[in-house]
Amino acid sequence: MNTKRHPRMTATATAAEFLMASRQCEIRNLEYFLQMGRLVQSVGNLVHGLQRERGATNLYLGSGCQRFARERTAMVKENDQLAATFRQALADIQEDLTTHPVSSPLLGHIASALHSLDQLPGLRQRVNDQEASVSEATEWFCDSIHQLITVVFEAAETVAEPSIAGLLVAMVHVMNGKEYCGQERAAGSAGFSSGHFDNALSRRMMHLVEAQERCFEVFVGFASEESLSLWQALRAHPRELEIERMRQMAVSVGPYKSLDKDMADRWFNLMTERMDDLKKIEDSVESAFHHRCVERYTEARHSLAHQETLLASLEQRHASTAPVLVVCDNGVEAGAADAWAGECVGQQSGRSIFDLVQEQTRRLRQMSEELQSAKEALEDRRTQEKAVLLLMEHRNISNDEAHRLLRKLAMDQGKRLPEVARALVSMAGVLS
Amino acid sequence: MNTKRHPRMTATATAAEFLMASRQCEIRNLEYFLQMGRLVQSVGNLVHGLQRERGATNLYLGSGCQRFARERTAMVKENDQLAATFRQALADIQEDLTTHPVSSPLLGHIASALHSLDQLPGLRQRVNDQEASVSEATEWFCDSIHQLITVVFEAAETVAEPSIAGLLVAMVHVMNGKEYCGQERAAGSAGFSSGHFDNALSRRMMHLVEAQERCFEVFVGFASEESLSLWQALRAHPRELEIERMRQMAVSVGPYKSLDKDMADRWFNLMTERMDDLKKIEDSVESAFHHRCVERYTEARHSLAHQETLLASLEQRHASTAPVLVVCDNGVEAGAADAWAGECVGQQSGRSIFDLVQEQTRRLRQMSEELQSAKEALEDRRTQEKAVLLLMEHRNISNDEAHRLLRKLAMDQGKRLPEVARALVSMAGVLS
Repeated sequence: MNTKRHPRMTATATAAEFLMASRQCEIRNLEYFLQMGRLVQSVGNLVHGLQRERGATNLYLGSGCQRFARERTAMVKENDQLAATFRQALADIQEDLTTHPVSSPLLGHIASALHSLDQLPGLRQRVNDQEASVSEATEWFCDSIHQLITVVFEAAETVAEPSIAGLLVAMVHVMNGKEYCGQERAAGSAGFSSGHFDNALSRRMMHLVEAQERCFEVFVGFASEESLSLWQALRAHPRELEIERMRQMAVSVGPYKSLDKDMADRWFNLMTERMDDLKKIEDSVESAFHHRCVERYTEARHSLAHQETLLASLEQRHASTAPVLVVCDNGVEAGAADAWAGECVGQQSGRSIFDLVQEQTRRLRQMSEELQSAKEALEDRRTQEKAVLLLMEHRNISNDEAHRLLRKLAMDQGKRLPEVARALVSMAGVLS
Repeated sequence: MNTKRHPRMTATATAAEFLMASRQCEIRNLEYFLQMGRLVQSVGNLVHGLQRERGATNLYLGSGCQRFARERTAMVKENDQLAATFRQALADIQEDLTTHPVSSPLLGHIASALHSLDQLPGLRQRVNDQEASVSEATEWFCDSIHQLITVVFEAAETVAEPSIAGLLVAMVHVMNGKEYCGQERAAGSAGFSSGHFDNALSRRMMHLVEAQERCFEVFVGFASEESLSLWQALRAHPRELEIERMRQMAVSVGPYKSLDKDMADRWFNLMTERMDDLKKIEDSVESAFHHRCVERYTEARHSLAHQETLLASLEQRHASTAPVLVVCDNGVEAGAADAWAGECVGQQSGRSIFDLVQEQTRRLRQMSEELQSAKEALEDRRTQEKAVLLLMEHRNISNDEAHRLLRKLAMDQGKRLPEVARALVSMAGVLS
């Protein structure tokens, strides 16, 4: 992509040249996002693989290395392949990322994600040797998955095209929702397999259900048509009712009553199916993202060609009638009145360069306004995470408790969650 | 700048490589802003020149081409030179702009500004031929200056470094304030030279004074030390009192009483001096911007070199103790437990790659938080302009009246101007 160099302009830079440059710049950006799509896809696949390995690892360790040994070995192999694909996608886009000046935070998060992945072989070895605990393994998987999702989040931040940004927002939220679902699977498995849910575990389940809902709400707001109907099908699936019943059991059974331990497998399988369906939704968003990029890219190339033709015809027409239309040499006043005449010539042909300039400005302004809602969704998410961190620090409470407190504040004040989070964050600035 | 290509990575992209890339990306961005500084400077100079030419043109036309003919000719020559410098600065940065994917709107606005400048020779010819009216000439100058300031505004939008973004915010607001001052000079000149201020003209004066104050308030919030003390000196200058007295006269004299017409020259000279002092403040911000860019650039290069050394020493240390530290080949589980040992080696030396990754992430997060206030100042400005446009359309009122209505709404509701503007814009979305 970087091999396409535009010839250096002469000192008399013209409006037409910059109009073209503005279009070319959009095209470059779309090329970049086509590549970014492949990276996002590889992240989604790797995250799904790690979620599966996390589940298998927990069951393997939880059963004293009796169960899921074979499945886990297969997953390890598969995930190494997925990690290699992720690294390849990174290598393919790395040059563009480095020359893309806004992507410094993105690159930083990629470094974090890679560093986390670098520790996977060590962790697996410790699992093989039964040296790692379930909670240690879970913590690593959760952290690593979080790092990977953050890469997609930061990628979404760098998009300037509203429909493409919207799809990445949908993507990040379905990924996040699926991850909460995975954590709910783990929490539920721990409870059902022990036959008990203590208060902390019940609360954690409630928090994870709530957090999923929030993610899917945002997802629905930005989803593509196909992914939305897949989502509705998932919601209508009988499995959802069964999951709901088991959730109710989990949060109401309390620490003293005992549950049938066979429910653990049922729960694990139901939630695994659910996650696989969520992955299909994610894939559908990914495919919509890809198609949208290709579509916009084709459109942009056509508009550029169209504009080129228009500008050429304006200049030609102009050359035959007046010496100056688009380009006015500096300091030349003689004959410059013709520039006004030239403008009229342009208008006679139905389109003047002024129209083109106005149109591009209007289009970009509209895009930036449409982009606003996607940016706000990302900003809301960021602010909520910041508010949760603040509450955790100030009150010395857990992540779950901080989320719950935030929701309670919102409910008590009859405000939306992002509003309360924003107020909290801004207050912290005043108080610190 | 684009000649610095980084070697394409192998498929096993590493955390260390991306950590370096994140730093290099910051450096590229700073190089870009060093060039951008020259562009902003050339815009500031050209705007000042056009403001002077606008004043001279009005006096020239207003005096039936008797006065300011010589001054105007000199200014035309000077401005052609300034426009050439602007075009040269554009040509110098054009390639970087085109490869900078977020700058598509910026390029579009540059095209608008250039297109506007292309009409200057034609306008001047019409002024020479006494075919252009004062209001036609004023309108062109105002529009062209507005386009040029918008270029700086859009440039400020693309900055990711908080202190640099803040200085560009200060720059845009002092430029805008100076332009309102220039428009106030024109409005006052019209009134004083006719000896009367009708209601519309008085209101326009009040609006322009108010608009200046708002701009300078924001400027003060982001100004560099030197520019701030220049601003305080300007405020303390005896000239300010005299201007204030004349402003009072202008808004209270009414349409029936007659003023001494000699006051017109006094007013013009006072306001011209004021604008020249504002230009000095602008230059001081520009110089602070340049120094800050150079400073940050030097810092960033040092950190990069420092990080390179650290990573090299980590790898070397690691090579002598364990086969895998930073890079874990995919699918290699054998010996991977050493990666954990390697991590410890890194920690013994006081710094592990994990620390470096964490530090970069923390630093970038902090930068993005600090950037927030600069972005908000720009966003506030954009929202206010949008609200004014909305009011103009919906109520069919002038720009001045819309500004006044907005201020009245804010005062009545006891809210800040940006809040009211935001509420208005969001309401419009609901109502349309």
